[in-house]
Amino acid sequence: MSFAFTIDYTDGAARAARFATPHGVVDTPSFMAVGTLATVKALDPDDLRAIGAQMILANAYHLHLRPGDALVRELGGLHEFMRWDRPILTDSGGFQVFSLATLRTVDEDGVDFQSHIDGSTRRFTPESVMRIERNLGADVIMQFDHVIPGQSDAAAARDASERSLRWLARCREEFERLVVEDPIPGRHAQALFPIVQGGIHENLRREAAAAIRSMGDWAGYGIGGLSVGEAKPDMYRILEAMHDVLPAGRPRYLMGVGFPEDLVEGVRRGVDLFDCVAPTRMGRNGAAFTRDGRLNIKRAEFRADRRPLDPECDCACCTRFTRAYLRHLFLADEILGLRLLSLHNVHFLVALMRDARSALLAGTFGAWSDAWLRRHHSRTVPAPA
Amino acid sequence: MSFAFTIDYTDGAARAARFATPHGVVDTPSFMAVGTLATVKALDPDDLRAIGAQMILANAYHLHLRPGDALVRELGGLHEFMRWDRPILTDSGGFQVFSLATLRTVDEDGVDFQSHIDGSTRRFTPESVMRIERNLGADVIMQFDHVIPGQSDAAAARDASERSLRWLARCREEFERLVVEDPIPGRHAQALFPIVQGGIHENLRREAAAAIRSMGDWAGYGIGGLSVGEAKPDMYRILEAMHDVLPAGRPRYLMGVGFPEDLVEGVRRGVDLFDCVAPTRMGRNGAAFTRDGRLNIKRAEFRADRRPLDPECDCACCTRFTRAYLRHLFLADEILGLRLLSLHNVHFLVALMRDARSALLAGTFGAWSDAWLRRHHSRTVPAPA
Repeated sequence: MSFAFTIDYTDGAARAARFATPHGVVDTPSFMAVGTLATVKALDPDDLRAIGAQMILANAYHLHLRPGDALVRELGGLHEFMRWDRPILTDSGGFQVFSLATLRTVDEDGVDFQSHIDGSTRRFTPESVMRIERNLGADVIMQFDHVIPGQSDAAAARDASERSLRWLARCREEFERLVVEDPIPGRHAQALFPIVQGGIHENLRREAAAAIRSMGDWAGYGIGGLSVGEAKPDMYRILEAMHDVLPAGRPRYLMGVGFPEDLVEGVRRGVDLFDCVAPTRMGRNGAAFTRDGRLNIKRAEFRADRRPLDPECDCACCTRFTRAYLRHLFLADEILGLRLLSLHNVHFLVALMRDARSALLAGTFGAWSDAWLRRHHSRTVPAPA
Repeated sequence: MSFAFTIDYTDGAARAARFATPHGVVDTPSFMAVGTLATVKALDPDDLRAIGAQMILANAYHLHLRPGDALVRELGGLHEFMRWDRPILTDSGGFQVFSLATLRTVDEDGVDFQSHIDGSTRRFTPESVMRIERNLGADVIMQFDHVIPGQSDAAAARDASERSLRWLARCREEFERLVVEDPIPGRHAQALFPIVQGGIHENLRREAAAAIRSMGDWAGYGIGGLSVGEAKPDMYRILEAMHDVLPAGRPRYLMGVGFPEDLVEGVRRGVDLFDCVAPTRMGRNGAAFTRDGRLNIKRAEFRADRRPLDPECDCACCTRFTRAYLRHLFLADEILGLRLLSLHNVHFLVALMRDARSALLAGTFGAWSDAWLRRHHSRTVPAPA
């Protein structure tokens, strides 16, 4: 089997493990940087390697629209196209169809929508999305699912969750058909991950997990539809409810999450993989993660501040540049500023998960995560010296 | 003396030399990347080091407006501020005052103008510009000069050239006063370069050069007011006329030039140093230098082109990415595209001057430059394979 998940250590629900893929091992818990359009915005693949990023994410919806999944396939697949030889996961586009696209109509077969780029009419079905994700060629591909707002009532959540289950069966069937009937020379194995939906309703989540497991064994499990507007305690409660209904020996991927505290809280509740656009999007807006909370580099207080963004950080931004210089770059609209803050923020989350893993392996995760969260929630950026 | 110019080889007017500065040696001929606002746009200092860039340029006018030269001084000077430990040259702002700023009035004492950023009223004099360039702390600082359009008549050119000579005397006096009366702890030596003006009028150029030399010995000489709208043959003629009237043993810096062919033609006429925003500005617009002429990466013909921008180039863009991927980055407005094309273009000019130097040292410069120019002027980008 090309995919394997080996648990090194557990501490309550939290675990340190290794997820083997055709493009190498992901040491978990792990944060995946988001390369929506086959580039992690403002960063170079070499930056990501230096940060120690392992698996990164790309997006089927966006790449289908631009440059087209058929072209990516023609050019050798995503790894070759974007020159990333480590693991890649593609999101199915479910989230984008239900958030970015307009004029969408859902029926049992699939979704009609208008492209957010040019307004052209498109149709996604479980089958068409499998063809897209197969063309792109990531190591892990996510099922096409029906995503609903975080506060949806139980009826809407049940409807979407049950549809997602039926779509999962169709995804698997089409994926298995493609492997046989449309072989791609030199192509590595791909793992299809199901996505557990069910909103903030624990019974629906448990039912969905059970139904997915009844369909067979999967190389990993996505947890979708969280961090989409619901309250944080709801997210934590759902994660706790799912701990016992997902198989211990498979990776759990909490989709679209998140911020530093979400990652630490997620690991405490058994999550292995995370992704979020926050570090790069915030970085381009001049906001930086620090161990003492968030910092907006454009603020006047940083005008002559010789300290790095986070004095304890060893990233390629913090080991070289002062807040004063970074502030200058942002006020002057210089591209280097976008790159440096994006780099720092991605490094911050990747290193945070590396630290969590080290604490797990050392048997000190409980104390480490308590201390980390306490300091983080104090959120005080020291005044300039 | 902190500055020295050692000629290794000459071939006609062309020469290979080494220009020693307090921050290291510049092997000439050499192209200086432009870091207007203390950053070479879209590039990281590490990119420039990897390219082999030695001396880079920053701009007194821009840095005076943002973030302010006093702040740069407070933060340890330009080298420390932007983390570039190799040589830096600052342009005086003469060119910007006469091109970017609005509502300017020139009198014998200096220039009143409005900032292009916020419309605030400013005044530059030879003395104030010396204070700015001393605060910034580059290795080489240019005199404040009166720049006029390339096609100006002889009377206007003489007026501006003679004023620039009087301003040079004031620059030197103020610079020498500052060194004595306003010492900066730990500050390295700075060399003030005069600028030869005189438009496209050979007699004015010769007179200006003679007047500058009669004022004493200088560590190097700027040649200003070219590539500002005049015809290329006029530029070449002026460079040829200046060859005998500038001292052989000092570096010659052709300001604001240029494109690849301008660099090769300049070296043939005795120029040692060049600078231009073209490689980064073009790069951000999707235009790339190649050995066979310019290429616009957005063109449809590159949609599935697996070749690098320039198949003979060994830069960090061409050794990794296809034209198809770069085109995708530009069509999707991805920041990585801006960086990669800027990187390639700066590398192209830096490597071009490195090649010219190698040819000079090998005694093959005449044949090398003939062949280079012939191929470049054919300007045929091969069709995709």
